[in-house]
Amino acid sequence: MKWVLGGVTAAQGFRASGLSAGIKRNRKPDVALVVSDHPATAVGVFTRNRVQAAPVLISKERLRRGKARAVLINSGCANCLTGPSGLTDALSIGCAVAQEMGVEDEMVLLASTGLIGRRLPVKRMMRVIPSLVHRLNRRHHEAAAHAILTTDLYAKEAAVETRINGRLCRVGGMAKGAGMISPSMATMLAVLTTDVAIDRRLLNELLQEAAERSFNRISVDGDMSTNDTVFLLASGRSGLEVRRGTKAQRQFAGMLAAVTQRLAKLLVKDGEGATRLMTVEVRGARTDAQAHACARHVADSPLVKTMLAGGDPNVGRIAAAIGASAARFDPRTLDIWISGERVVSRGMALRVGKPATRALLRRPEVPIRIDLRTGRSRATMIGCDLTEEYVRINAGYAT
Amino acid sequence: MKWVLGGVTAAQGFRASGLSAGIKRNRKPDVALVVSDHPATAVGVFTRNRVQAAPVLISKERLRRGKARAVLINSGCANCLTGPSGLTDALSIGCAVAQEMGVEDEMVLLASTGLIGRRLPVKRMMRVIPSLVHRLNRRHHEAAAHAILTTDLYAKEAAVETRINGRLCRVGGMAKGAGMISPSMATMLAVLTTDVAIDRRLLNELLQEAAERSFNRISVDGDMSTNDTVFLLASGRSGLEVRRGTKAQRQFAGMLAAVTQRLAKLLVKDGEGATRLMTVEVRGARTDAQAHACARHVADSPLVKTMLAGGDPNVGRIAAAIGASAARFDPRTLDIWISGERVVSRGMALRVGKPATRALLRRPEVPIRIDLRTGRSRATMIGCDLTEEYVRINAGYAT
Repeated sequence: MKWVLGGVTAAQGFRASGLSAGIKRNRKPDVALVVSDHPATAVGVFTRNRVQAAPVLISKERLRRGKARAVLINSGCANCLTGPSGLTDALSIGCAVAQEMGVEDEMVLLASTGLIGRRLPVKRMMRVIPSLVHRLNRRHHEAAAHAILTTDLYAKEAAVETRINGRLCRVGGMAKGAGMISPSMATMLAVLTTDVAIDRRLLNELLQEAAERSFNRISVDGDMSTNDTVFLLASGRSGLEVRRGTKAQRQFAGMLAAVTQRLAKLLVKDGEGATRLMTVEVRGARTDAQAHACARHVADSPLVKTMLAGGDPNVGRIAAAIGASAARFDPRTLDIWISGERVVSRGMALRVGKPATRALLRRPEVPIRIDLRTGRSRATMIGCDLTEEYVRINAGYAT
Repeated sequence: MKWVLGGVTAAQGFRASGLSAGIKRNRKPDVALVVSDHPATAVGVFTRNRVQAAPVLISKERLRRGKARAVLINSGCANCLTGPSGLTDALSIGCAVAQEMGVEDEMVLLASTGLIGRRLPVKRMMRVIPSLVHRLNRRHHEAAAHAILTTDLYAKEAAVETRINGRLCRVGGMAKGAGMISPSMATMLAVLTTDVAIDRRLLNELLQEAAERSFNRISVDGDMSTNDTVFLLASGRSGLEVRRGTKAQRQFAGMLAAVTQRLAKLLVKDGEGATRLMTVEVRGARTDAQAHACARHVADSPLVKTMLAGGDPNVGRIAAAIGASAARFDPRTLDIWISGERVVSRGMALRVGKPATRALLRRPEVPIRIDLRTGRSRATMIGCDLTEEYVRINAGYAT
């Protein structure tokens, strides 16, 4: 498997474009289109929030057919809490794209991200749809990746290729994130593409699995958005068919895991105000659910996150977060390591407040390992620090 | 019912003292003693964190007898993650207090707050115990209230009196909080006293109930500490006996509710870096648990909290937090009010981004009302904003 350039159009059969429709006040690009030259097998993963944006409701419905030709994404406006009008707005813009492309409405998937509660500026968006379609090009993956950003600092793309049964296959994609990255991929959008041929049901299973181990394992602030969407489109253009239970399936799943995990990590790195990552690895839990709950509680704890920002290893905060989680364990057997150094041994803190321990947090990526010593389950979460910059960004977002 | 001065010694039969033992580096007061002149009926509520500090383990055990003469509290060191030595340290200091007072060891309750993972400076603490006992006085309630503070900005005291069956009765107390106030009273200590006579079992029930509606209904940052403790001691000195099912019981419960709710509110107001409070009231939930989970999710959401700090009513964040909570509801019937103004009606946002709506958050205390319209259950949580100051305080706490 080799990392390649090309992002969401790295796989054969896809083109993209991105430009400004004036949804964002600063005239930055805010509409992206990703198109498959032929009907692609399409699946998706969506937010589990009970409040869901109009494009989420529409795309979920459209994915029942399992086929798509296009994904239209806008940033700057979430089209959520907009009632029946929000649905109409999204449907008309999708319809305009379908007409311009000469395909059925149902073949256009939709996603939005941005401020909740405002209507889409439909007229302004309509005006740019012809040029959005006109500009579609395999080289424009980066323009698309830029057009989906909100408070992100940089575009996030990833793609890999590998030879499976003699055919060169690719998986690529783009994502946006920044704030609210957790749980369940909050305010996180991604479009993934591949040129393998694959049955819809199998593709769906593989996407669920990949998302569970990537986008659902990261946390910026523990909040969950109304718009989270991951699309995966398979064009079949590589000529390789991925069948259930084959080695090809395992290879394809490996590529999908690589791309989703790379994108997920880029999302945390670009978390609002984040300066440092942490990898929280929990071992020895009774169940997978307890391991995961424990890792998430630590990664989401404001006190652990501010500790990481300050670079001051106050290990009691980690222990307190573990103890407050749903994980069951005996505190007298708890072990914690930071950057490979044991800081809690059998429930007792070591080296607290010693200047040397400060060095343990002085890394761009801090591994925190926790052993509950009550079972065999494990889980890992990637989180980031909580800085004053996060507060600055979020205290004035709507204005 | 009348608010009175006197804090933890407002009720008859109690004395207090507070001074510096040099646990805190800045020589601020860090040891407090509250004493009942005669054996008092005593009950407590403790953290539900699985990792519990040595004084919590000891006090829980001692409360089985239901009687106490003294509560010794230190700030500056949590005596947690300190293993068997931490237990020995706490026991010896408790023993020194008991000897100085001439009472049994078992009659001394203990609580600690401060940095986790460090041993108590036992020698230094031993040295001040004689003067701590010597200085016991009904007038020294404020010295005690100051000695239990950590990052709190001010001492928190409250007391009420009322005449029940012709007898003048009082309930008073002191508390500390600041960071980590949630869930389950995180890093929150309180000592409550009363001069009614009451059976231990009934007193315990009334304390649990009062705590559930006060200390367990506030949130600063969603973290839960290892040291949370609330003690309630009843001296019986007013001459009034509170019996189950009587009007006196209801009156006494009212006094307890007033004092605990006042202290709880003072805790949120003094939340680390807090500049503004919010009261999140959820109505129309299917069950009490769902109502409470929903209110807590909103009050704990970093995006809602930063919105409150910025004074910018981004109502989508409130809706997203509600939708991400455990509450079940139909998003199309959701209503939200901020400061009495409806901002979401039947699932649709109103007035987003309008300058006038900014005024809705420009209050020291912002009421957020949510109607899920699916049932009859209600819950209220009090939270505060998340400011850059919170991050500054917590990024460098151990150093």
